Amino acid sequence: MCELMGMSANVPTDICFSFSGLLERGGRTGPHKDGWGIGFYEGKGFRSFIDPLPCCNSELAGLIKNYPIKSHTVISHIRQANSGGIKLENTHPFSRELWGQHWCYAHNGQLKGFEQLACDVYTPVGETDSEHAFCWLLSQISLLDQEETSKCDFAYKMKPKLDHLRSLGVFNMLMSDSTYLYAYCSTKLSWITRKAPFGEANLKDVDLQVNFVNETTLSDVVTVVATEPLTHNEEWNTMSEGELVVFRNGSLICRVT
Amino acid sequence: MCELMGMSANVPTDICFSFSGLLERGGRTGPHKDGWGIGFYEGKGFRSFIDPLPCCNSELAGLIKNYPIKSHTVISHIRQANSGGIKLENTHPFSRELWGQHWCYAHNGQLKGFEQLACDVYTPVGETDSEHAFCWLLSQISLLDQEETSKCDFAYKMKPKLDHLRSLGVFNMLMSDSTYLYAYCSTKLSWITRKAPFGEANLKDVDLQVNFVNETTLSDVVTVVATEPLTHNEEWNTMSEGELVVFRNGSLICRVT
Repeated sequence: MCELMGMSANVPTDICFSFSGLLERGGRTGPHKDGWGIGFYEGKGFRSFIDPLPCCNSELAGLIKNYPIKSHTVISHIRQANSGGIKLENTHPFSRELWGQHWCYAHNGQLKGFEQLACDVYTPVGETDSEHAFCWLLSQISLLDQEETSKCDFAYKMKPKLDHLRSLGVFNMLMSDSTYLYAYCSTKLSWITRKAPFGEANLKDVDLQVNFVNETTLSDVVTVVATEPLTHNEEWNTMSEGELVVFRNGSLICRVT
Repeated sequence: MCELMGMSANVPTDICFSFSGLLERGGRTGPHKDGWGIGFYEGKGFRSFIDPLPCCNSELAGLIKNYPIKSHTVISHIRQANSGGIKLENTHPFSRELWGQHWCYAHNGQLKGFEQLACDVYTPVGETDSEHAFCWLLSQISLLDQEETSKCDFAYKMKPKLDHLRSLGVFNMLMSDSTYLYAYCSTKLSWITRKAPFGEANLKDVDLQVNFVNETTLSDVVTVVATEPLTHNEEWNTMSEGELVVFRNGSLICRVT
Protein backbone atom coordinates (compact mmCIF):
# COMPACT_ATOMS: atom_id res chain seq x y z
CA MET A 1 0.00 0.00 0.00
CA CYS A 2 1.14 3.46 -0.84
CA GLU A 3 0.03 6.62 0.89
CA LEU A 4 -1.72 9.51 -0.81
CA MET A 5 -2.06 13.09 0.28
CA GLY A 6 -3.73 16.00 -1.45
CA MET A 7 -4.61 19.60 -0.66
CA SER A 8 -7.06 22.13 -2.04
CA ALA A 9 -7.11 25.69 -0.70
CA ASN A 10 -8.67 29.06 -1.46
CA VAL A 11 -5.41 30.90 -0.85
CA PRO A 12 -1.88 29.77 -1.71
CA THR A 13 -1.01 27.60 1.26
CA ASP A 14 2.08 25.65 2.16
CA ILE A 15 1.80 21.96 2.87
CA CYS A 16 4.87 21.72 5.14
CA PHE A 17 2.89 20.56 8.19
CA SER A 18 1.03 17.73 6.50
CA PHE A 19 4.04 16.75 4.38
CA SER A 20 6.08 16.39 7.59
CA GLY A 21 3.61 13.79 8.77
CA LEU A 22 3.48 11.98 5.45
CA LEU A 23 7.28 11.88 5.17
CA GLU A 24 7.57 9.89 8.37
CA ARG A 25 5.52 7.15 6.77
CA GLY A 26 8.11 6.93 3.99
CA GLY A 27 10.34 4.39 5.66
CA ARG A 28 10.13 5.32 9.34
CA THR A 29 6.61 4.92 10.77
CA GLY A 30 5.41 3.27 7.55
CA PRO A 31 6.82 0.75 5.08
CA HIS A 32 6.67 3.09 2.04
CA LYS A 33 10.33 3.37 1.23
CA ASP A 34 10.27 2.99 -2.55
CA GLY A 35 10.17 6.62 -3.56
CA TRP A 36 8.01 9.63 -3.08
CA GLY A 37 6.75 12.61 -5.01
CA ILE A 38 4.81 15.81 -4.64
CA GLY A 39 3.24 18.04 -7.27
CA PHE A 40 2.38 21.71 -6.69
CA TYR A 41 0.13 23.96 -8.71
CA GLU A 42 0.84 27.67 -8.65
CA GLY A 43 -1.89 29.16 -10.83
CA LYS A 44 -1.81 27.16 -14.06
CA GLY A 45 1.86 26.41 -13.46
CA PHE A 46 2.82 23.00 -12.19
CA ARG A 47 5.99 21.52 -10.80
CA SER A 48 6.67 18.22 -9.19
CA PHE A 49 9.49 16.81 -7.15
CA ILE A 50 9.95 13.07 -7.41
CA ASP A 51 12.61 10.82 -6.03
CA PRO A 52 13.00 7.03 -6.08
CA LEU A 53 14.78 7.21 -2.69
CA PRO A 54 12.98 6.70 0.65
CA CYS A 55 11.60 10.08 1.57
CA CYS A 56 12.36 9.87 5.29
CA ASN A 57 16.06 10.30 4.52
CA SER A 58 15.90 12.09 1.16
CA GLU A 59 17.79 15.38 1.06
CA LEU A 60 15.32 16.68 -1.49
CA ALA A 61 12.34 15.76 0.68
CA GLY A 62 14.00 17.55 3.57
CA LEU A 63 14.19 20.69 1.46
CA ILE A 64 10.55 20.47 0.42
CA LYS A 65 9.47 19.95 4.03
CA ASN A 66 11.12 23.25 4.95
CA TYR A 67 10.60 25.20 1.73
CA PRO A 68 7.16 26.77 1.94
CA ILE A 69 5.93 26.49 -1.64
CA LYS A 70 2.55 28.22 -1.59
CA SER A 71 0.03 26.39 -3.68
CA HIS A 72 -3.74 26.09 -4.26
CA THR A 73 -3.57 22.43 -5.08
CA VAL A 74 -1.09 19.73 -4.10
CA ILE A 75 -0.88 16.00 -4.75
CA SER A 76 1.64 13.84 -2.96
CA HIS A 77 2.47 10.15 -2.82
CA ILE A 78 4.85 7.84 -1.04
CA ARG A 79 5.42 4.50 -2.60
CA GLN A 80 5.64 0.88 -1.63
CA ALA A 81 6.43 -0.72 -4.94
CA ASN A 82 4.33 -3.60 -6.18
CA SER A 83 3.97 -3.12 -9.94
CA GLY A 84 7.15 -1.82 -11.62
CA GLY A 85 10.66 -1.46 -10.22
CA ILE A 86 12.00 1.30 -7.99
CA LYS A 87 12.85 3.72 -10.74
CA LEU A 88 12.26 7.38 -11.45
CA GLU A 89 9.81 6.64 -14.27
CA ASN A 90 7.67 4.58 -11.89
CA THR A 91 7.49 7.30 -9.23
CA HIS A 92 4.21 9.14 -8.59
CA PRO A 93 2.68 11.63 -9.13
CA PHE A 94 2.41 11.28 -12.89
CA SER A 95 1.43 14.18 -15.09
CA ARG A 96 0.25 14.85 -18.62
CA GLU A 97 -1.13 17.90 -20.40
CA LEU A 98 -4.75 18.00 -21.56
CA TRP A 99 -6.67 21.07 -22.82
CA GLY A 100 -3.74 23.34 -21.98
CA GLN A 101 -3.75 22.22 -18.35
CA HIS A 102 -1.27 20.05 -16.50
CA TRP A 103 -3.09 17.05 -15.03
CA CYS A 104 -1.44 15.42 -12.07
CA TYR A 105 -2.37 12.03 -10.64
CA ALA A 106 -1.33 9.57 -7.94
CA HIS A 107 -2.74 6.12 -7.20
CA ASN A 108 -2.79 3.75 -4.28
CA GLY A 109 -3.68 0.12 -4.86
CA GLN A 110 -3.07 -2.64 -7.38
CA LEU A 111 -4.85 -3.40 -10.64
CA LYS A 112 -5.12 -6.68 -12.53
CA GLY A 113 -5.29 -6.86 -16.30
CA PHE A 114 -4.44 -3.20 -16.65
CA GLU A 115 -2.43 -4.00 -19.79
CA GLN A 116 -5.77 -4.41 -21.59
CA LEU A 117 -6.69 -0.75 -21.06
CA ALA A 118 -6.21 1.07 -24.38
CA CYS A 119 -3.98 4.11 -24.10
CA ASP A 120 -4.90 5.92 -27.32
CA VAL A 121 -3.81 9.44 -26.57
CA TYR A 122 -1.31 9.05 -23.75
CA THR A 123 1.33 6.33 -23.49
CA PRO A 124 2.93 5.13 -20.26
CA VAL A 125 6.64 5.83 -19.86
CA GLY A 126 7.22 3.41 -16.97
CA GLU A 127 5.84 -0.05 -16.18
CA THR A 128 3.36 0.57 -13.37
CA ASP A 129 -0.33 -0.30 -13.34
CA SER A 130 -0.85 3.19 -11.92
CA GLU A 131 0.59 5.16 -14.82
CA HIS A 132 -1.10 2.84 -17.32
CA ALA A 133 -4.45 3.48 -15.64
CA PHE A 134 -3.78 7.22 -15.68
CA CYS A 135 -3.00 7.20 -19.41
CA TRP A 136 -6.22 5.29 -20.07
CA LEU A 137 -8.26 7.53 -17.79
CA LEU A 138 -6.96 10.74 -19.31
CA SER A 139 -7.47 9.36 -22.82
CA GLN A 140 -11.10 8.72 -21.81
CA ILE A 141 -11.46 12.17 -20.23
CA SER A 142 -10.13 13.79 -23.40
CA LEU A 143 -13.26 12.48 -25.14
CA LEU A 144 -15.56 14.31 -22.69
CA ASP A 145 -16.87 17.80 -23.29
CA GLN A 146 -14.37 20.16 -21.73
CA GLU A 147 -16.93 22.95 -21.45
CA GLU A 148 -19.41 20.92 -19.42
CA THR A 149 -21.57 23.57 -17.74
CA SER A 150 -21.53 21.99 -14.30
CA LYS A 151 -18.46 20.41 -12.76
CA CYS A 152 -20.80 17.87 -11.18
CA ASP A 153 -22.01 16.77 -14.61
CA PHE A 154 -18.38 16.31 -15.51
CA ALA A 155 -17.76 14.30 -12.34
CA TYR A 156 -20.81 12.10 -13.06
CA LYS A 157 -19.38 11.32 -16.48
CA MET A 158 -15.97 10.58 -15.03
CA LYS A 159 -17.23 8.24 -12.33
CA PRO A 160 -18.01 5.15 -14.46
CA LYS A 161 -14.43 5.25 -15.73
CA LEU A 162 -13.13 5.34 -12.17
CA ASP A 163 -15.52 2.54 -11.24
CA HIS A 164 -14.13 0.51 -14.12
CA LEU A 165 -10.60 0.91 -12.74
CA ARG A 166 -11.86 -0.06 -9.29
CA SER A 167 -13.30 -3.24 -10.80
CA LEU A 168 -9.72 -4.25 -11.69
CA GLY A 169 -8.51 -4.18 -8.10
CA VAL A 170 -7.86 -1.45 -5.55
CA PHE A 171 -8.04 2.06 -6.91
CA ASN A 172 -7.71 4.98 -4.50
CA MET A 173 -6.78 8.06 -6.45
CA LEU A 174 -6.05 11.76 -6.36
CA MET A 175 -6.08 13.85 -9.53
CA SER A 176 -6.11 17.52 -10.43
CA ASP A 177 -6.26 19.75 -13.50
CA SER A 178 -4.93 22.70 -11.44
CA THR A 179 -8.38 24.08 -10.51
CA TYR A 180 -10.17 21.01 -9.17
CA LEU A 181 -8.97 18.27 -6.88
CA TYR A 182 -10.63 14.89 -7.53
CA ALA A 183 -10.46 12.22 -4.86
CA TYR A 184 -11.79 8.73 -5.54
CA CYS A 185 -12.02 6.03 -2.92
CA SER A 186 -11.81 2.32 -3.43
CA THR A 187 -10.81 1.12 0.03
CA LYS A 188 -9.26 3.91 2.07
CA LEU A 189 -9.31 7.70 1.81
CA SER A 190 -10.23 10.44 4.29
CA TRP A 191 -10.48 14.20 4.14
CA ILE A 192 -10.87 17.18 6.38
CA THR A 193 -11.75 20.81 5.67
CA ARG A 194 -10.22 23.37 7.98
CA LYS A 195 -11.74 26.84 8.21
CA ALA A 196 -12.49 29.42 10.89
CA PRO A 197 -12.68 28.97 13.81
CA PHE A 198 -9.27 27.30 13.48
CA GLY A 199 -7.83 25.15 16.21
CA GLU A 200 -4.78 23.15 16.99
CA ALA A 201 -3.74 19.97 15.19
CA ASN A 202 -1.34 17.26 16.31
CA LEU A 203 0.40 15.04 13.80
CA LYS A 204 0.05 11.31 14.40
CA ASP A 205 3.40 10.27 12.98
CA VAL A 206 5.75 12.82 14.44
CA ASP A 207 5.74 14.95 17.53
CA LEU A 208 4.65 18.13 15.83
CA GLN A 209 1.67 20.36 16.37
CA VAL A 210 0.46 23.48 14.70
CA ASN A 211 -2.05 26.07 15.80
CA PHE A 212 -3.75 27.08 12.58
CA VAL A 213 -5.02 30.29 14.21
CA ASN A 214 -1.47 31.61 13.92
CA GLU A 215 -0.99 30.39 10.34
CA THR A 216 -4.20 31.47 8.69
CA THR A 217 -6.66 34.30 8.16
CA LEU A 218 -10.37 34.05 8.97
CA SER A 219 -11.36 33.53 5.34
CA ASP A 220 -8.95 30.63 4.64
CA VAL A 221 -10.45 27.31 3.61
CA VAL A 222 -8.06 24.38 3.31
CA THR A 223 -8.95 20.76 2.63
CA VAL A 224 -6.50 17.92 3.10
CA VAL A 225 -7.16 14.42 1.74
CA ALA A 226 -5.09 11.47 2.90
CA THR A 227 -5.05 7.69 2.85
CA GLU A 228 -5.26 7.76 6.64
CA PRO A 229 -5.96 10.77 8.86
CA LEU A 230 -2.72 12.64 9.52
CA THR A 231 -3.82 14.13 12.84
CA HIS A 232 -5.33 12.43 15.89
CA ASN A 233 -7.28 15.29 17.47
CA GLU A 234 -9.49 16.25 14.54
CA GLU A 235 -12.57 14.73 12.91
CA TRP A 236 -11.79 13.40 9.41
CA ASN A 237 -14.44 12.32 6.88
CA THR A 238 -13.99 8.70 5.87
CA MET A 239 -14.90 8.10 2.24
CA SER A 240 -16.90 5.08 1.17
CA GLU A 241 -16.18 2.59 -1.59
CA GLY A 242 -16.82 4.07 -5.03
CA GLU A 243 -17.20 7.62 -3.76
CA LEU A 244 -15.85 10.52 -5.79
CA VAL A 245 -15.47 13.98 -4.26
CA VAL A 246 -14.44 17.18 -6.02
CA PHE A 247 -12.89 20.18 -4.27
CA ARG A 248 -12.30 23.68 -5.54
CA ASN A 249 -10.58 26.41 -3.54
CA GLY A 250 -10.70 24.18 -0.48
CA SER A 251 -14.45 23.56 -0.57
CA LEU A 252 -16.36 20.42 -1.44
CA ILE A 253 -18.33 21.22 -4.59
CA CYS A 254 -19.49 17.80 -5.63
CA ARG A 255 -19.89 14.32 -4.22
CA VAL A 256 -20.84 11.35 -6.39
CA THR A 257 -21.53 8.01 -4.74
CA MET B 1 18.32 36.58 -24.32
CA CYS B 2 18.10 33.48 -22.22
CA GLU B 3 20.87 30.99 -21.70
CA LEU B 4 20.71 27.32 -22.60
CA MET B 5 22.76 24.43 -21.38
CA GLY B 6 22.54 20.75 -22.22
CA MET B 7 24.51 17.61 -21.53
CA SER B 8 24.76 14.19 -23.13
CA ALA B 9 26.95 11.50 -21.58
CA ASN B 10 27.68 7.79 -21.94
CA VAL B 11 27.65 7.24 -18.18
CA PRO B 12 25.40 8.88 -15.60
CA THR B 13 27.20 12.13 -14.93
CA ASP B 14 26.45 15.02 -12.62
CA ILE B 15 26.21 18.51 -14.08
CA CYS B 16 27.17 20.38 -10.88
CA PHE B 17 30.29 21.97 -12.39
CA SER B 18 28.63 23.39 -15.50
CA PHE B 19 25.45 24.31 -13.61
CA SER B 20 27.56 26.34 -11.17
CA GLY B 21 28.76 28.44 -14.09
CA LEU B 22 25.31 28.81 -15.60
CA LEU B 23 23.78 29.82 -12.26
CA GLU B 24 26.03 32.84 -12.02
CA ARG B 25 24.52 34.16 -15.24
CA GLY B 26 21.09 34.02 -13.61
CA GLY B 27 21.20 37.50 -12.13
CA ARG B 28 24.83 37.93 -11.14
CA THR B 29 27.20 37.88 -14.14
CA GLY B 30 24.25 37.87 -16.57
CA PRO B 31 20.84 39.56 -16.76
CA HIS B 32 18.79 36.33 -16.71
CA LYS B 33 16.89 36.76 -13.51
CA ASP B 34 13.40 35.72 -14.55
CA GLY B 35 13.49 32.10 -13.56
CA TRP B 36 15.45 28.99 -14.30
CA GLY B 37 14.93 25.31 -14.79
CA ILE B 38 16.76 22.05 -15.29
CA GLY B 39 15.51 18.69 -16.51
CA PHE B 40 17.29 15.41 -15.81
CA TYR B 41 16.82 12.04 -17.47
CA GLU B 42 17.62 8.95 -15.48
CA GLY B 43 16.98 6.10 -17.89
CA LYS B 44 13.49 6.73 -19.28
CA GLY B 45 12.62 8.60 -16.11
CA PHE B 46 12.53 12.37 -16.19
CA ARG B 47 12.32 15.04 -13.55
CA SER B 48 12.67 18.75 -13.77
CA PHE B 49 13.21 21.51 -11.27
CA ILE B 50 11.80 24.86 -12.28
CA ASP B 51 11.57 28.12 -10.38
CA PRO B 52 10.37 31.58 -11.40
CA LEU B 53 12.88 33.13 -8.96
CA PRO B 54 16.36 34.30 -10.03
CA CYS B 55 18.59 31.26 -9.83
CA CYS B 56 21.62 33.01 -8.38
CA ASN B 57 19.82 33.33 -5.05
CA SER B 58 17.32 30.46 -5.31
CA GLU B 59 17.46 28.00 -2.43
CA LEU B 60 16.34 25.25 -4.77
CA ALA B 61 19.06 26.07 -7.32
CA GLY B 62 21.59 25.96 -4.49
CA LEU B 63 20.43 22.45 -3.65
CA ILE B 64 20.66 21.29 -7.27
CA LYS B 65 24.15 22.77 -7.61
CA ASN B 66 25.32 20.61 -4.72
CA TYR B 67 23.09 17.56 -5.21
CA PRO B 68 24.85 15.30 -7.69
CA ILE B 69 21.96 13.92 -9.71
CA LYS B 70 23.60 11.49 -12.12
CA SER B 71 22.06 11.68 -15.55
CA HIS B 72 22.74 10.72 -19.18
CA THR B 73 20.95 13.75 -20.56
CA VAL B 74 20.28 17.17 -19.07
CA ILE B 75 18.61 20.32 -20.39
CA SER B 76 18.82 23.58 -18.48
CA HIS B 77 17.67 27.14 -19.06
CA ILE B 78 17.88 30.49 -17.35
CA ARG B 79 15.38 33.06 -18.40
CA GLN B 80 15.21 36.71 -19.27
CA ALA B 81 11.52 37.15 -19.91
CA ASN B 82 10.31 38.68 -23.15
CA SER B 83 7.18 36.78 -24.14
CA GLY B 84 4.95 35.84 -21.17
CA GLY B 85 5.15 37.01 -17.56
CA ILE B 86 7.45 35.72 -14.83
CA LYS B 87 5.32 32.77 -13.80
CA LEU B 88 5.84 29.10 -13.17
CA GLU B 89 3.92 28.08 -16.29
CA ASN B 90 6.25 30.20 -18.44
CA THR B 91 9.43 28.70 -17.00
CA HIS B 92 11.60 26.40 -19.15
CA PRO B 93 12.29 23.59 -19.74
CA PHE B 94 8.89 22.45 -20.97
CA SER B 95 8.00 18.80 -21.31
CA ARG B 96 5.40 16.59 -22.94
CA GLU B 97 5.07 12.85 -23.48
CA LEU B 98 5.25 11.37 -26.98
CA TRP B 99 5.56 7.66 -27.88
CA GLY B 100 5.96 6.73 -24.22
CA GLN B 101 8.95 9.06 -23.81
CA HIS B 102 9.21 12.33 -21.93
CA TRP B 103 10.34 15.05 -24.34
CA CYS B 104 12.02 18.03 -22.76
CA TYR B 105 12.73 21.32 -24.51
CA ALA B 106 14.15 24.77 -23.86
CA HIS B 107 14.37 27.75 -26.22
CA ASN B 108 16.39 30.92 -26.47
CA GLY B 109 15.19 33.71 -28.73
CA GLN B 110 11.97 35.40 -29.74
CA LEU B 111 9.43 34.42 -32.37
CA LYS B 112 6.92 36.58 -34.23
CA GLY B 113 3.53 35.33 -35.34
CA PHE B 114 3.91 32.16 -33.29
CA GLU B 115 0.18 32.27 -32.46
CA GLN B 116 -0.45 31.07 -36.05
CA LEU B 117 1.32 27.76 -35.42
CA ALA B 118 -1.35 25.09 -35.07
CA CYS B 119 -1.04 23.05 -31.90
CA ASP B 120 -3.15 20.01 -32.80
CA VAL B 121 -1.89 17.43 -30.38
CA TYR B 122 -0.28 19.48 -27.61
CA THR B 123 -1.64 22.72 -26.15
CA PRO B 124 0.42 25.39 -24.42
CA VAL B 125 -0.29 25.92 -20.71
CA GLY B 126 1.47 29.29 -20.43
CA GLU B 127 1.74 32.28 -22.75
CA THR B 128 5.27 32.07 -24.12
CA ASP B 129 6.29 31.89 -27.78
CA SER B 130 8.70 29.16 -26.64
CA GLU B 131 6.11 26.73 -25.29
CA HIS B 132 3.79 27.42 -28.23
CA ALA B 133 6.62 26.57 -30.65
CA PHE B 134 7.34 23.39 -28.69
CA CYS B 135 3.71 22.28 -28.84
CA TRP B 136 3.66 22.87 -32.59
CA LEU B 137 7.02 21.15 -33.09
CA LEU B 138 6.06 18.07 -31.09
CA SER B 139 2.69 17.91 -32.86
CA GLN B 140 4.66 17.86 -36.15
CA ILE B 141 7.13 15.27 -34.86
CA SER B 142 4.24 13.03 -33.79
CA LEU B 143 3.38 12.71 -37.49
CA LEU B 144 6.83 11.34 -38.35
CA ASP B 145 7.69 7.67 -38.39
CA GLN B 146 8.88 6.79 -34.91
CA GLU B 147 10.73 3.72 -36.17
CA GLU B 148 12.86 5.59 -38.69
CA THR B 149 15.82 3.27 -39.29
CA SER B 150 18.49 5.94 -39.05
CA LYS B 151 18.41 8.73 -36.49
CA CYS B 152 19.96 10.97 -39.16
CA ASP B 153 16.99 10.38 -41.46
CA PHE B 154 14.82 11.43 -38.55
CA ALA B 155 16.94 14.54 -37.99
CA TYR B 156 16.73 15.42 -41.70
CA LYS B 157 12.95 15.27 -41.48
CA MET B 158 12.90 17.36 -38.33
CA LYS B 159 15.14 20.09 -39.70
CA PRO B 160 12.65 21.87 -42.05
CA LYS B 161 10.34 22.29 -39.05
CA LEU B 162 13.15 23.84 -37.02
CA ASP B 163 14.03 26.05 -40.00
CA HIS B 164 10.42 27.18 -40.13
CA LEU B 165 10.58 28.27 -36.49
CA ARG B 166 13.87 30.07 -37.19
CA SER B 167 12.14 31.97 -40.01
CA LEU B 168 9.87 33.50 -37.33
CA GLY B 169 12.73 35.07 -35.37
CA VAL B 170 15.54 33.73 -33.23
CA PHE B 171 15.32 30.04 -32.42
CA ASN B 172 18.16 28.40 -30.52
CA MET B 173 16.91 25.21 -28.99
CA LEU B 174 17.74 22.12 -26.98
CA MET B 175 15.44 19.11 -26.96
CA SER B 176 15.64 15.48 -25.85
CA ASP B 177 13.52 12.36 -25.88
CA SER B 178 15.70 10.82 -23.13
CA THR B 179 18.07 9.01 -25.52
CA TYR B 180 19.06 11.74 -27.96
CA LEU B 181 20.00 15.36 -27.36
CA TYR B 182 19.05 17.67 -30.23
CA ALA B 183 20.69 21.09 -30.45
CA TYR B 184 19.59 23.58 -33.08
CA CYS B 185 21.32 26.90 -33.68
CA SER B 186 19.80 30.08 -34.96
CA THR B 187 22.25 32.66 -33.70
CA LYS B 188 24.33 31.33 -30.83
CA LEU B 189 25.13 27.85 -29.55
CA SER B 190 28.41 26.05 -28.82
CA TRP B 191 29.38 22.58 -27.71
CA ILE B 192 32.32 20.64 -26.48
CA THR B 193 32.95 16.91 -26.12
CA ARG B 194 35.21 15.88 -23.29
CA LYS B 195 36.87 12.45 -23.34
CA ALA B 196 40.25 10.93 -22.49
CA PRO B 197 42.82 12.35 -22.15
CA PHE B 198 40.93 14.63 -19.76
CA GLY B 199 42.36 17.94 -18.65
CA GLU B 200 41.48 20.82 -16.43
CA ALA B 201 38.67 23.28 -17.06
CA ASN B 202 38.17 26.75 -15.62
CA LEU B 203 34.72 28.29 -15.43
CA LYS B 204 34.36 31.74 -16.96
CA ASP B 205 31.70 33.05 -14.62
CA VAL B 206 32.91 31.96 -11.26
CA ASP B 207 36.28 31.16 -9.78
CA LEU B 208 35.96 27.41 -10.01
CA GLN B 209 38.05 24.82 -11.75
CA VAL B 210 37.79 21.09 -12.08
CA ASN B 211 40.30 18.52 -13.17
CA PHE B 212 38.21 15.99 -15.05
CA VAL B 213 40.98 13.37 -14.67
CA ASN B 214 39.89 13.05 -11.04
CA GLU B 215 36.17 12.96 -11.87
CA THR B 216 36.03 10.53 -14.75
CA THR B 217 37.12 7.15 -16.05
CA LEU B 218 39.03 6.67 -19.31
CA SER B 219 35.94 5.56 -21.20
CA ASP B 220 33.72 8.53 -20.24
CA VAL B 221 32.39 10.70 -23.05
CA VAL B 222 30.55 13.85 -22.02
CA THR B 223 29.25 16.59 -24.29
CA VAL B 224 28.10 19.97 -23.00
CA VAL B 225 26.14 22.40 -25.18
CA ALA B 226 25.70 26.02 -24.12
CA THR B 227 24.65 29.40 -25.48
CA GLU B 228 28.16 30.65 -24.79
CA PRO B 229 31.21 28.58 -23.83
CA LEU B 230 31.22 28.04 -20.07
CA THR B 231 35.00 27.62 -19.77
CA HIS B 232 37.81 29.81 -21.08
CA ASN B 233 40.62 27.33 -21.46
CA GLU B 234 38.98 24.79 -23.75
CA GLU B 235 38.13 24.74 -27.45
CA TRP B 236 34.36 24.85 -28.02
CA ASN B 237 32.65 24.18 -31.36
CA THR B 238 30.64 27.17 -32.50
CA MET B 239 27.49 26.15 -34.35
CA SER B 240 26.39 27.92 -37.51
CA GLU B 241 22.97 29.32 -38.38
CA GLY B 242 20.48 26.58 -39.21
CA GLU B 243 22.71 23.77 -37.96
CA LEU B 244 21.20 20.79 -36.14
CA VAL B 245 23.39 18.38 -34.19
CA VAL B 246 22.31 15.16 -32.51
CA PHE B 247 24.18 13.53 -29.63
CA ARG B 248 23.78 10.12 -28.10
CA ASN B 249 25.74 8.87 -25.09
CA GLY B 250 27.93 11.96 -25.33
CA SER B 251 28.94 11.46 -28.96
CA LEU B 252 27.94 13.43 -32.03
CA ILE B 253 25.99 11.04 -34.23
CA CYS B 254 24.52 13.40 -36.75
CA ARG B 255 25.01 16.92 -38.07
CA VAL B 256 22.55 18.51 -40.50
CA THR B 257 23.38 21.92 -41.97
